[in-house]
Amino acid sequence: MRILVINPNTTTSMTDKIGKAAQAAASPATEVVAVNPKDGPPSIEGYFDEVFSVPGIIAEMAKAGTMDAYVIACFDDTGLDAARCATEAPVIGIGEAAFHLATLIAGKFSVVTTLARSVPAIEHNLLKYGLSSRCAKVRASDVAVLDLELPGSDARHKISAEIARAVAEDKAEAVVLGCAGMADLAHALSTEHGVPVLDGVACAVRLAETVSALGLRTSKIGGYAEPRAKRFSGHYAPWSPPLQRRASS
Amino acid sequence: MRILVINPNTTTSMTDKIGKAAQAAASPATEVVAVNPKDGPPSIEGYFDEVFSVPGIIAEMAKAGTMDAYVIACFDDTGLDAARCATEAPVIGIGEAAFHLATLIAGKFSVVTTLARSVPAIEHNLLKYGLSSRCAKVRASDVAVLDLELPGSDARHKISAEIARAVAEDKAEAVVLGCAGMADLAHALSTEHGVPVLDGVACAVRLAETVSALGLRTSKIGGYAEPRAKRFSGHYAPWSPPLQRRASS
Amino acid sequence: MRILVINPNTTTSMTDKIGKAAQAAASPATEVVAVNPKDGPPSIEGYFDEVFSVPGIIAEMAKAGTMDAYVIACFDDTGLDAARCATEAPVIGIGEAAFHLATLIAGKFSVVTTLARSVPAIEHNLLKYGLSSRCAKVRASDVAVLDLELPGSDARHKISAEIARAVAEDKAEAVVLGCAGMADLAHALSTEHGVPVLDGVACAVRLAETVSALGLRTSKIGGYAEPRAKRFSGHYAPWSPPLQRRASS
Amino acid sequence: MRILVINPNTTTSMTDKIGKAAQAAASPATEVVAVNPKDGPPSIEGYFDEVFSVPGIIAEMAKAGTMDAYVIACFDDTGLDAARCATEAPVIGIGEAAFHLATLIAGKFSVVTTLARSVPAIEHNLLKYGLSSRCAKVRASDVAVLDLELPGSDARHKISAEIARAVAEDKAEAVVLGCAGMADLAHALSTEHGVPVLDGVACAVRLAETVSALGLRTSKIGGYAEPRAKRFSGHYAPWSPPLQRRASS
Amino acid sequence: MRILVINPNTTTSMTDKIGKAAQAAASPATEVVAVNPKDGPPSIEGYFDEVFSVPGIIAEMAKAGTMDAYVIACFDDTGLDAARCATEAPVIGIGEAAFHLATLIAGKFSVVTTLARSVPAIEHNLLKYGLSSRCAKVRASDVAVLDLELPGSDARHKISAEIARAVAEDKAEAVVLGCAGMADLAHALSTEHGVPVLDGVACAVRLAETVSALGLRTSKIGGYAEPRAKRFSGHYAPWSPPLQRRASS
Amino acid sequence: MRILVINPNTTTSMTDKIGKAAQAAASPATEVVAVNPKDGPPSIEGYFDEVFSVPGIIAEMAKAGTMDAYVIACFDDTGLDAARCATEAPVIGIGEAAFHLATLIAGKFSVVTTLARSVPAIEHNLLKYGLSSRCAKVRASDVAVLDLELPGSDARHKISAEIARAVAEDKAEAVVLGCAGMADLAHALSTEHGVPVLDGVACAVRLAETVSALGLRTSKIGGYAEPRAKRFSGHYAPWSPPLQRRASS
Repeated sequence: MRILVINPNTTTSMTDKIGKAAQAAASPATEVVAVNPKDGPPSIEGYFDEVFSVPGIIAEMAKAGTMDAYVIACFDDTGLDAARCATEAPVIGIGEAAFHLATLIAGKFSVVTTLARSVPAIEHNLLKYGLSSRCAKVRASDVAVLDLELPGSDARHKISAEIARAVAEDKAEAVVLGCAGMADLAHALSTEHGVPVLDGVACAVRLAETVSALGLRTSKIGGYAEPRAKRFSGHYAPWSPPLQRRASS
Repeated sequence: MRILVINPNTTTSMTDKIGKAAQAAASPATEVVAVNPKDGPPSIEGYFDEVFSVPGIIAEMAKAGTMDAYVIACFDDTGLDAARCATEAPVIGIGEAAFHLATLIAGKFSVVTTLARSVPAIEHNLLKYGLSSRCAKVRASDVAVLDLELPGSDARHKISAEIARAVAEDKAEAVVLGCAGMADLAHALSTEHGVPVLDGVACAVRLAETVSALGLRTSKIGGYAEPRAKRFSGHYAPWSPPLQRRASS
Repeated sequence: MRILVINPNTTTSMTDKIGKAAQAAASPATEVVAVNPKDGPPSIEGYFDEVFSVPGIIAEMAKAGTMDAYVIACFDDTGLDAARCATEAPVIGIGEAAFHLATLIAGKFSVVTTLARSVPAIEHNLLKYGLSSRCAKVRASDVAVLDLELPGSDARHKISAEIARAVAEDKAEAVVLGCAGMADLAHALSTEHGVPVLDGVACAVRLAETVSALGLRTSKIGGYAEPRAKRFSGHYAPWSPPLQRRASS
Repeated sequence: MRILVINPNTTTSMTDKIGKAAQAAASPATEVVAVNPKDGPPSIEGYFDEVFSVPGIIAEMAKAGTMDAYVIACFDDTGLDAARCATEAPVIGIGEAAFHLATLIAGKFSVVTTLARSVPAIEHNLLKYGLSSRCAKVRASDVAVLDLELPGSDARHKISAEIARAVAEDKAEAVVLGCAGMADLAHALSTEHGVPVLDGVACAVRLAETVSALGLRTSKIGGYAEPRAKRFSGHYAPWSPPLQRRASS
Repeated sequence: MRILVINPNTTTSMTDKIGKAAQAAASPATEVVAVNPKDGPPSIEGYFDEVFSVPGIIAEMAKAGTMDAYVIACFDDTGLDAARCATEAPVIGIGEAAFHLATLIAGKFSVVTTLARSVPAIEHNLLKYGLSSRCAKVRASDVAVLDLELPGSDARHKISAEIARAVAEDKAEAVVLGCAGMADLAHALSTEHGVPVLDGVACAVRLAETVSALGLRTSKIGGYAEPRAKRFSGHYAPWSPPLQRRASS
Repeated sequence: MRILVINPNTTTSMTDKIGKAAQAAASPATEVVAVNPKDGPPSIEGYFDEVFSVPGIIAEMAKAGTMDAYVIACFDDTGLDAARCATEAPVIGIGEAAFHLATLIAGKFSVVTTLARSVPAIEHNLLKYGLSSRCAKVRASDVAVLDLELPGSDARHKISAEIARAVAEDKAEAVVLGCAGMADLAHALSTEHGVPVLDGVACAVRLAETVSALGLRTSKIGGYAEPRAKRFSGHYAPWSPPLQRRASS
């Protein structure tokens, strides 16, 4: 099975880290291909950055050739709905993946993300997915995304402190890490705090395998229907539907 | 007061119609400037089309110079959150505008939109805005967006029939027209059916005036904070924050 | 345009303050007529006071002659549903006005009102309007309504302190002032705290103008239908429907 | 135990019917005193009528002398919150009484009320009580309140037909009759349709006994706190708090 | 009237205490029969214990002979749905009884229960009953169920401290005691804190009387339908439906 | 990896069918062990049957020896919470498995289950899981569970007809089959109707693998904490915690 893991930002060191985490989490027979758009923001911190990453996500999907499933590796699940329109193969966001799996091992979870500005988008996704009632709180650790890439930053310390507060104050039974760049921290933080700590990248890769292996494909009779044929203008002309080569469908 | 009304699709005849409807609805002292992106889809029908229109919306905002308020004239409120990050001036979506005003004159409203594929995005917005409980039903009339531009199409007939069903079956006390391209139909349909029929373009222009006149500006301490300074790559480099010229702030 | 702004309590100094705030917020061409009932409570602090103000609200509407719109200037939106039955012209409550506009400039808002006893009615309105999910918290500042009229009271200080808590603890992105008597404080408090602070009187007057200018009228096919003809007894006989002179319809 | 059952409208034949139904439902040791206001509407059909009945409800409570509990016998639970402020003794509305008891014998219930205009107020109460999720549908039978008093009307037939639809279409497991004037029909309709049919008058009288017998009294630390001392103007001066004689406290 | 009060755990001293509380709360003419299963856990603390008590609850119902109503005296309302299938007579849980009555005397209530592990099941019940929005918080007092039976334990002190926090922090207007073993504490704690404190055992007995006296019986057309005839295996063969002797129906 | 798949009813032909479906859906390296309790109901149709199957589920878990994960193969997710207390290894219900995966490939899904009496328990689970807003409707096909085992029954026809209605009337974008006994029908029905049709058994086995492979274990700090040590009476003494041999922990 081949899974395309798309880091929606343009920071290749982060793509590498995500790719390694994804491959480590995948089944042995699964090949993870990790990519990022060429055009767009170097990190996604809030609604503004988000929208400039989505055309690049679609471009990477088109470029990648046939895939069995796709993972969008930004915790905001950036562009997830559009990506689902672009293929029949399953597309899984790392945010939703972690939320769903957390509900299978805990009554309530909290999220520990990066900056305060990213909290509303995550809360909004929880509402849309239906899982707001299962999330005790979305917490910001005041760590910028790219600080997670810096050796010697106090990022891990801040995240750990916020997990402690989630357990003590929110009565969270599990904690979801709210950024793809935290993928390498989950295991140690789980041991440290004695609660399940979920990383969305690992969750999403395994869920993508699961949905694909079950032969389930994105429904094409509602909001995720194949885009109607039309001619996009200018820079976006290459993505005019019907899509030249719809990945894997 | 100057208001930039952005039609997120690239169909200029629709931009003209929207601009005329907006100017007609505005206060006499208000100047409406109607624009559309150069790059992107000719109509927005579902999640896929939507994401290719947002960078162009931001571009039009940047290009327009100082404005007192902005209106996004697609019923999906495409790119609304990102646009709010880009300026302190009020940004109003035509969907939200019609929903909010409908609740001030009716206990429950229904929405009559274009195609079935657009229903989920509208339902999702209602949930996010908090107004799901006030909407009886989102109904598709099976009219494609650009058919609204065609003389002689049966679009008006289909929309009218769906309004009749909304009143009879949903017990809707008001009806919101779910596409900017229906702006010219609201008055006659209201008379025909004896219920308030709301067009989002008119609602949004007046709400934008209202918020601006009250001196209210978008909050910058949460999800709509000014984007963090960073260098976007490639095609999107011109939109790297801090924004060269943040409109009107 | 003529708008009747009804202060539901009998304190004329408060009516004057509200009238001035309303006229200051209105468009130049709008004439604000500020009135209060002759019979009823001098301030509205909780459910009990509220019900004794409503017949007087209806009486003032009947007495006022033709109006283009009505504003009910008590933050509980006292008697709003009944007033909507009494006319086809728009009727706007100052509570709902501030809530709706706050959602257009902020992801979440908190309310700072007067006494603890008034909190449940406000929470209940938010639920009814559908906007509970957008309100982080309704906070009491422990200021009695008429203390807002006293020079030298510590009311402003208490309200400001509560706004600070709303921003720090609730992560509110905007604050709504929960009493018509706070209308003169909004601007300075907004500057002081660096967040939008909304006064319902100003919001409602502008929203009333907006709804009226758009030609929207209260729906008469559901809960706001014209009252059925019947003979009220005793003191209330003058309000027996059909209403002698339905304002402006 | 003495329970004051207040019919909020001024139609004495309806007060008699309600009083008889209440006494029949009460424990043998309970004395039911049935009254109605002198001033106000002869029937309550929608928001407008409602507000003119509430001062009279409070007046009847004050006039009645010491009571162990109060029942408000209009299905809208008219004035319930205000009445709870006026006494520490329990006050039960017939709407809420039927809703709560229905949930103890059925997973979901539907309501069959009189006119369409009364539906929104009932839906709004369900939301406020928290029980919306337990109500499948609020249905209007198109029967005016006072038609229930007319021999030979087709009211019973229409109500029965609506119950049949509630069972077939809503999958309602129980049906609540949505008007005090239907009190005499519940038993026969239950037998006819083979489902529990609840009359709010009987439910409320028994619940009032229950709350009173358990020694529970309305909480005075929040929204139902004793009204603050103040001087009401004009016609309402007699109800200025502190209440001259707070019933039974 | 005869009411079977079932303590779902096997601790007979607790059954005695519950039985006395139930009889004390009941109408004079009511005979309370208090029983407990022979097989099962000595206390119910969380989901695991719960499921081993339910077959014994059904067994006690079958053994008891004709009854007018049943009360399940564990705050989790253990086995309530199954018990309702087993009889047409009303079955009331002590948790639901306290929740419903609390909403009749207070806008919001908090629950003070035993251990943290019991909180999720109570929250889940509130959601199912529809009453989550009326409950400010479910609080654990860190008291094990059987510690309530020990003279000299600090259980009462811990519970009282938690009630104080519920009033101060949650703005709870009433407090529900979340364990049948707290039945004897309600009155004194209510006096101590000046708020209504509800014990579910008393509430349930009176509600059971009420539903039975009103002639209401559990609906048999939905989820509580009589179990389909089938042959249970092994240990549970005696409970194979149709039930040998369905209590009181 | 070894997964214990527990059919909670005692019908061994159904256990065989479920076991085969589970093994077929599992990864090649996974060994499925399918069992059913010796004591209990031959099919689970509603709340009553359900509770008699749970002690047997726990017994089978204890008997099975070390397992990597558990699947409860009744669509009601019978005993799921209790089973999660009994082990740290993941426990997945087939209902929740299908619901969660359906939301990853469709905006809204409907459920087609067996009998009307099973609908409320499923709706209740959806509410608890947080996914009610994602489910358009839970539909009964009027097929008894064991009729699915009968060659020549019209079960498949009835189910197919109900799927057609779900697509046409509910606008469901995917359909979840609401009984373990329908496991063999999913693929053909999906092809027939052109929408994803999900079988919970396959979904649960793959999800169990996923959660286990990710090293996630059920949180032990809240509702799923290890049962407190206590001595169960009589028939249930063998299950007294601490559990003799906690499976796989």
